[in-house]
Amino acid sequence: MLPFARVAILGLGLIGSSIARAVRQSMPTVHLSGYDADPAVRARAVELDLVDELTDTPGAAVMDADFVILCVPVGAMGAVAASIAADLPADAIVSDVGSSKAGVAKALAEALPGIAIVPAHPVAGTENSGPDAGFASLFNGRWCILTPAGDADPAAVMRVSTFWERIGARVDIMDAAHHDLVLAVTSHLPHLIAYTIVGTASDLEEVTQHEVIKYSAGGFRDFTRIAASDPTMWRDVFLANKGAVLEMLQRFSEDLTALQRAIRWGDGDALFDLFTRTRAIRRSIIEQGQDDARPDFGRVHD
Amino acid sequence: MLPFARVAILGLGLIGSSIARAVRQSMPTVHLSGYDADPAVRARAVELDLVDELTDTPGAAVMDADFVILCVPVGAMGAVAASIAADLPADAIVSDVGSSKAGVAKALAEALPGIAIVPAHPVAGTENSGPDAGFASLFNGRWCILTPAGDADPAAVMRVSTFWERIGARVDIMDAAHHDLVLAVTSHLPHLIAYTIVGTASDLEEVTQHEVIKYSAGGFRDFTRIAASDPTMWRDVFLANKGAVLEMLQRFSEDLTALQRAIRWGDGDALFDLFTRTRAIRRSIIEQGQDDARPDFGRVHD
Repeated sequence: MLPFARVAILGLGLIGSSIARAVRQSMPTVHLSGYDADPAVRARAVELDLVDELTDTPGAAVMDADFVILCVPVGAMGAVAASIAADLPADAIVSDVGSSKAGVAKALAEALPGIAIVPAHPVAGTENSGPDAGFASLFNGRWCILTPAGDADPAAVMRVSTFWERIGARVDIMDAAHHDLVLAVTSHLPHLIAYTIVGTASDLEEVTQHEVIKYSAGGFRDFTRIAASDPTMWRDVFLANKGAVLEMLQRFSEDLTALQRAIRWGDGDALFDLFTRTRAIRRSIIEQGQDDARPDFGRVHD
Repeated sequence: MLPFARVAILGLGLIGSSIARAVRQSMPTVHLSGYDADPAVRARAVELDLVDELTDTPGAAVMDADFVILCVPVGAMGAVAASIAADLPADAIVSDVGSSKAGVAKALAEALPGIAIVPAHPVAGTENSGPDAGFASLFNGRWCILTPAGDADPAAVMRVSTFWERIGARVDIMDAAHHDLVLAVTSHLPHLIAYTIVGTASDLEEVTQHEVIKYSAGGFRDFTRIAASDPTMWRDVFLANKGAVLEMLQRFSEDLTALQRAIRWGDGDALFDLFTRTRAIRRSIIEQGQDDARPDFGRVHD
């Protein structure tokens, strides 16, 4: 049993185009329609044959759909939802893939009164953007978190859950506010810190940018990967999840200050204790299949 | 022409054992002797056949060597150098692989008066430690920075340079103080920040450690890799390179505070500008062969 027969994807970047490819692979009889606000992306989507029907307006993409997924930056969710309100079938289910959930849920509910909405966040991605960056196996083994409102229709939640499982993901259900707190620490704070350190390193006077790049294999290069992520998407995430991000940032700053003090006063034991504790977390992440065990991310050394 | 005929490696962890393996591969006629303070590592080195002659004391390893490389945490360099002073041939060249250089150069010069010393730092490594973690191609294409004193014998510097090139590295020569500043930003600060954020994440009350691990694919897992590095090595690095690390940490904190303010006041343009600028650095690192271009570090998604 397929959870949906006609799926519309609005936004055909990394995530939207990965969903399209994954649906093609795992549910080939599903009809796919798609739209992107950028004409160049629409043209590329046709060349890549991402969907069965590429439309010139968002409304045209959704008019016969039973499932609509908004794959746009979180700051654009409300406007895109409003743009399909007039054409959306009354029994269609609407979802999204935004990295923050409380604000998006509110924006979707306001733009689409009476429509079944099941917000979702697949915790998966790469540093690349655009329709060429997507691939069908992106969601394999990754978690997709659904954050339905308390009064959501359980049947709608079940169908969205089945959809994500069919394209390879594992599904969790969580309160939107708790999601935003969890992701603030596992995703938003890491991105913010990576962006900051890459910025700091490129602004030095005594050390040239050429040197920073040349000797990046000492650790810096690992930060540059996530600091190459899509700027619009991430600007929106930080603005949308402001409260939780600022809370986590405050805790991080306090911990960093404590370490700074340990270095200044030569407290080697405090450093050693923390550095020992952090190893165990890495081990658990690998054991639970959320990262690759090969050392150095399996980078090629030959 | 081989730069050295008899090489002694003191410390057979990730770096020492990688050097041994690389020498075996690229200069098979070189005689290798080795020592490690840990009896378990010595036993394992015999099983792995890392060196031709595994000795029970550091002095015995160096007594016939023309090149001695200290591959121990930077805090142990002075003591290890002192332990070989009586047995070291007068014409042997001594080097090391420490991640900070000014302090190590001073410790070696004090412990080994009259000996030719050419400090070195191969900017390469993985998150794994110990004799089993090493591999022959670790240094391929990576930079090895030599920091000889101003009055060092140019012939000695040239031989050490040739040694590193023969095992795959590219060689640079730099002032020790400048090295410590450059590496503070490209290696020490990233490690410190990675250790901090992993510690922060594991200390939360509202978000469980289980959740942090489960949803780590959102970015957090990239930090855990370098936060799994050897605790003793890194404690010593931060204590040895205190001045430069504190300076870089101060700049990072200022930049992070500025971003925190931009988030609090909803200044999306400031966020977008930084996030756009950092992408270019990533591109340069890949172009210069210091990282892998495959998205998501080439992690397996199937």
